Amino acid sequence: MSWSAAQALPAPELDVERWFNTGAPLSLADLRGRVVLLHAFQMLCPACVQRATPQAQQVHERFGRAGVTVVGLHTVFEHHAAMQPVSLAAYIHENRLRFAIGVDRPDGQGGIPMTMRAYAMEGTPTAILIDRQGRERLRRFGHLDDLDLGAALGRLLAEG
Amino acid sequence: MSWSAAQALPAPELDVERWFNTGAPLSLADLRGRVVLLHAFQMLCPACVQRATPQAQQVHERFGRAGVTVVGLHTVFEHHAAMQPVSLAAYIHENRLRFAIGVDRPDGQGGIPMTMRAYAMEGTPTAILIDRQGRERLRRFGHLDDLDLGAALGRLLAEG
Amino acid sequence: MSWSAAQALPAPELDVERWFNTGAPLSLADLRGRVVLLHAFQMLCPACVQRATPQAQQVHERFGRAGVTVVGLHTVFEHHAAMQPVSLAAYIHENRLRFAIGVDRPDGQGGIPMTMRAYAMEGTPTAILIDRQGRERLRRFGHLDDLDLGAALGRLLAEG
Amino acid sequence: MSWSAAQALPAPELDVERWFNTGAPLSLADLRGRVVLLHAFQMLCPACVQRATPQAQQVHERFGRAGVTVVGLHTVFEHHAAMQPVSLAAYIHENRLRFAIGVDRPDGQGGIPMTMRAYAMEGTPTAILIDRQGRERLRRFGHLDDLDLGAALGRLLAEG
Repeated sequence: MSWSAAQALPAPELDVERWFNTGAPLSLADLRGRVVLLHAFQMLCPACVQRATPQAQQVHERFGRAGVTVVGLHTVFEHHAAMQPVSLAAYIHENRLRFAIGVDRPDGQGGIPMTMRAYAMEGTPTAILIDRQGRERLRRFGHLDDLDLGAALGRLLAEG
Repeated sequence: MSWSAAQALPAPELDVERWFNTGAPLSLADLRGRVVLLHAFQMLCPACVQRATPQAQQVHERFGRAGVTVVGLHTVFEHHAAMQPVSLAAYIHENRLRFAIGVDRPDGQGGIPMTMRAYAMEGTPTAILIDRQGRERLRRFGHLDDLDLGAALGRLLAEG
Repeated sequence: MSWSAAQALPAPELDVERWFNTGAPLSLADLRGRVVLLHAFQMLCPACVQRATPQAQQVHERFGRAGVTVVGLHTVFEHHAAMQPVSLAAYIHENRLRFAIGVDRPDGQGGIPMTMRAYAMEGTPTAILIDRQGRERLRRFGHLDDLDLGAALGRLLAEG
Repeated sequence: MSWSAAQALPAPELDVERWFNTGAPLSLADLRGRVVLLHAFQMLCPACVQRATPQAQQVHERFGRAGVTVVGLHTVFEHHAAMQPVSLAAYIHENRLRFAIGVDRPDGQGGIPMTMRAYAMEGTPTAILIDRQGRERLRRFGHLDDLDLGAALGRLLAEG
């Protein structure tokens, strides 16, 4: 985990086809001043379902008032027909997810969707932490432990 | 848990639209002589995903040679559009489920599917244990603890 | 797991210095007709504390009426000074253990205690299942999974 | 969690009878410049054994290089005879605890030991976070969740 913020580049903007759990579309530009946990997942990815998505929900519930916004990103890059928005909607409902979730815009060819591509993510789940200036500061493909995630959030929140 | 097998009625036959993980359709009639764990679930039911379906997979792996056949039954009674067979297929693949899974036959009106109806199940997950003579001997709506499930399997296997 | 009871030998009798959680000393002879789970442990053995002893307490609570008696055996074979009965008493109290627990009789030389020696156990935790005729039918050094333990209990209970 | 460091008082100095896992006695005075997690526990307190002490070990392993020192404090206030240093030594060995652990100095009357008294702790486990200036900044009696503990550590580390 590097905290040399000097070199950090702005995180690419989100390219989302459709939003759940939010009245208006979200953009990273509008979230300046907030620490953002970008949680990229697929509703049929077991490691997402079992650990990463419940963790994102926890962060939403417990760190929202402290200054963290959780943004879910449904980055479907396989089994496209199986994970259409109608299925995602039921998944969100059944699992009582409350944070904003965007459907990453399909590339139109059944491949990697647009935001996932812009970030060059490796797969799901991926956690990306974005600081109050909109810069990507931490990325983890796979499981990010609660202690480590908490420590990173604490550091970014402390930057004021 | 009553073991007074005398009064037990034959379990209703399965009414399945489509099978996964099996070369030929299964019927309870063909499974006489085996102890059957009938695992009724929905792929977007959190209690199924987190506990009951992994438990069914465990029983399949560890008690198959001892005489237990696990039969999954996808009993979609809500969010029908979200849990079509194309989504179920991806769910089975991603979660590496190896036991036979049948899609309970829809009632054609978006309601409770046919086998679920015949058994008068209360919801998902439901575990039903069927003895070597094809009689229902134990039913649990909700979580059935490993110790209790193991004990019931042990008793039914011991009936020879 | 072999169930060929024909060859099973009688389990050695317990040699216990002091009992907790029971008005009168227990003997396997007096427990004929009951299925016995003999749970050999040490109060400072992490695998006992975390998994095996809580599991023994669960079996005590849930299978007692069905015919299972859980007998704890504190088989101190290392750190003798650290695990004297005064410490065991506090451990039992703090962890709310309710099943009968006997202190395996020391060999007087700081070595392996007498019952542990008679059974030729390999270490702790060890689970030993004894059938209604007093014969050892299953032994596991290390963790015995709930499904497997349940199945073994179910089979032994079914022997009537 | 208040971060208004202005009002924070210096944490009382440790009063320890005997140390484990450290060549020389520790003092908070010597730990200025480090973030300190003071982990007060008893070796027979189930909530300590199951959650808080393993968590302290995790913090020791993973945040030591980042600037956190974990100090265990064995605050025996009940069952004194059961938790003497000879038993604690075996407990530390068996559970492979590597962080420094001090035995809180007994009051000589079988009551609450001296450091626990100076901090007016409510029981065990208690987690106390001390900042780089030696001021108590967070206290939790009972379980402190990994996300919350991580966030607090992250904030204190960020204070530089």
